[in-house]
Amino acid sequence: MTILETQGLAAKNAARKLAVTGEKQKNAALLAMADALLARKGQWLSANAADLAAARAAGMRESLLDRLTLDEKRIAAIAEGVRQIHALPDPIGQVVKTTLRPNGLKLEQRRVPLGVVGIIYEARPNVTVDAAALCLKSGNACILRGGKEAFRSNRAVIAILRDALEASGLPRDCVALVEDTSRETAQQMMDLTEYLDVLIPRGGAGLIHSVAANAHVPVIRTGEGVCHIYVHREADLPMAARILYNAKCSRPSVCNAAECVLVDRAVAEDFLPMAWELLQKKSVKLHGDPECREILGDFVLPAAPEDWDAEYGDYQLAVKVVSGPEEAMDFIAAHGTGHSEAILTESYTAARQFCDGVDAAAVYVNASTRFTDGFEFGLGAEIGISTQKLHARGPMGLEELTSTKYVVYGDGQIRE
Amino acid sequence: MTILETQGLAAKNAARKLAVTGEKQKNAALLAMADALLARKGQWLSANAADLAAARAAGMRESLLDRLTLDEKRIAAIAEGVRQIHALPDPIGQVVKTTLRPNGLKLEQRRVPLGVVGIIYEARPNVTVDAAALCLKSGNACILRGGKEAFRSNRAVIAILRDALEASGLPRDCVALVEDTSRETAQQMMDLTEYLDVLIPRGGAGLIHSVAANAHVPVIRTGEGVCHIYVHREADLPMAARILYNAKCSRPSVCNAAECVLVDRAVAEDFLPMAWELLQKKSVKLHGDPECREILGDFVLPAAPEDWDAEYGDYQLAVKVVSGPEEAMDFIAAHGTGHSEAILTESYTAARQFCDGVDAAAVYVNASTRFTDGFEFGLGAEIGISTQKLHARGPMGLEELTSTKYVVYGDGQIRE
Repeated sequence: MTILETQGLAAKNAARKLAVTGEKQKNAALLAMADALLARKGQWLSANAADLAAARAAGMRESLLDRLTLDEKRIAAIAEGVRQIHALPDPIGQVVKTTLRPNGLKLEQRRVPLGVVGIIYEARPNVTVDAAALCLKSGNACILRGGKEAFRSNRAVIAILRDALEASGLPRDCVALVEDTSRETAQQMMDLTEYLDVLIPRGGAGLIHSVAANAHVPVIRTGEGVCHIYVHREADLPMAARILYNAKCSRPSVCNAAECVLVDRAVAEDFLPMAWELLQKKSVKLHGDPECREILGDFVLPAAPEDWDAEYGDYQLAVKVVSGPEEAMDFIAAHGTGHSEAILTESYTAARQFCDGVDAAAVYVNASTRFTDGFEFGLGAEIGISTQKLHARGPMGLEELTSTKYVVYGDGQIRE
Repeated sequence: MTILETQGLAAKNAARKLAVTGEKQKNAALLAMADALLARKGQWLSANAADLAAARAAGMRESLLDRLTLDEKRIAAIAEGVRQIHALPDPIGQVVKTTLRPNGLKLEQRRVPLGVVGIIYEARPNVTVDAAALCLKSGNACILRGGKEAFRSNRAVIAILRDALEASGLPRDCVALVEDTSRETAQQMMDLTEYLDVLIPRGGAGLIHSVAANAHVPVIRTGEGVCHIYVHREADLPMAARILYNAKCSRPSVCNAAECVLVDRAVAEDFLPMAWELLQKKSVKLHGDPECREILGDFVLPAAPEDWDAEYGDYQLAVKVVSGPEEAMDFIAAHGTGHSEAILTESYTAARQFCDGVDAAAVYVNASTRFTDGFEFGLGAEIGISTQKLHARGPMGLEELTSTKYVVYGDGQIRE
């Protein structure tokens, strides 16, 4: 058995125990985790300092160093996040549906944990705690494989979490870390069909594509976002400019940020200068089609074909003038990633047509795409945003980390 | 583009139309299909006769020939099945959940089609119609790849179905058949990630394993069933014998048939002879552990290790004596396929322990495992029985062929 198979077996056994563990005990373990994170933060911080020193020596970019960095305030926020997950309702055991059949069989469809959840992610130590807490609350064991740059931080915090589990009477193996962060163990994890019920990649597009292409374990694809704002001819234009500015500029690195604006020809001359007045505050680089460049001027870069599929992740925006809803919807069908798409309009008919016709995890009328998020949607927490259609779509909270089973109560029924 | 990619693109375009097609038009198309199957049954029968002649010449077994065979009565039943699907409620557009957020955003989680469903199956021409009708009702386009032995029958019936679609004003490409049934097109279909939203294999364990191991498209595993009947010491023994007989013998070839009985030591001496009295009517071959052989005699074959994992699919049964619920549940965790598991008992505590602790799509108390079925569960129809935990678990009806999307209604909200 490989080390990963051994971990998989241990996680599967832990998951069996966890599946019949009540909310009270899981909650006690979550509080113990939150307390232990604060009580032992010195250990976590010094491991993190070692990761940071190594990353700096290896020349890591400042923005990535920032993601990797822990401090007292961040640890306090992470512990508070665990307390918030503790306070959420436990989805396990909820009865989704009951049916009484004519032959007297009573069917109960119940929520149960998925089993063992694998998560592959990059160098953000907060994800380690977050994922462990969400999986525990939803009754799942988890095997976590963080980025190698955060390895010391992850090893330190996993030890703290496992001690807290044990002190609460739960198996340490409810949470496990893949300690060997080589490419080989990533593939082993993707092949761990006997032990993993699902694999969730969290990170950039490269990671997600690679996991989706190579995994034999069922995967949930998350977080690819080429999101569009479509400004319909009947939009409230000042509102539309504010929403576009928010969708592009409030946090351009995240997946629900807008990457492309489509503008109805009828209002392009009015809208584009109005939008630019806001966008220029952040020096947004525009990639426009010829009509956009004609209206705004040569400072707009000519959009190349690849701009229509780009997830810029920073202060850049593609701009295209369209004839109306049909062209906008066709364009979104061709270039969207099924994440978040918005129409800005006062037209009831156009809004309805767009909501029905656009195929995405979230479709908006007159609001920023930036709201596609577990907290903003009221789920209380989030393990990622699914951009696939199977199992879960959109922000995934605790319920999306569950499956169901039918419990069937009979009194001697046999089938004819 | 390969032929399959061309079909995939056409199906994707058809699916976009179908997603915004109302129930009325889909229902009209389903009735047109049912009518056309009857009106043009001659075409289907003569194609089937050619398939049968070729299969006989190739030496196909009688039981497989029977599955391949169509006659007037079977066609009438298939057409009636389409009418029944027409009568089921349309899941598309149903609102699963609405949420009003403090910032005034109104969220609506709506059922939407999956998109394009691929189905790989064996030589049963009825599956072609059944799958096409279920996909159409749930707003999905489908690409069907049946067994090569049924190719002429499938081509004939797909032409009939596509004509009916066209006559109803829907795209012919809502339903497509993979005409080249070589191994190569099977792999192409498993790699068709750009166009297929899900792939469902329907057939034997070999087919399902091969698709699950080789597909890059998300797969729903169906129909692997090593199902257990656990006779607890407090079972009503005559009822237990009747249920075991039904679970094993009413249709041993199907996935919800029992393959193994676990009997509490305390009642084994009473129960096993009682069960044998029924099982011998079908000359069931028993594979027993030493205790079973001691009780029943040497006619029981000694169970080999592989018997504990065997999906016999015929009149054979593995028999094991256990110490109680703990051992039974551990055994089921080690050898079950997560399909259907039953405890037979009058003990409330044992029943509760078993229902909570056994991880399977369906867990029964005092009833035959043979009820795990879309019709018996009241879903009205079934595309298969999922034995995985992601997306759907247990019998899959129309709802399980859907995804959801969030429609978010705002009035200018931006995120801080």
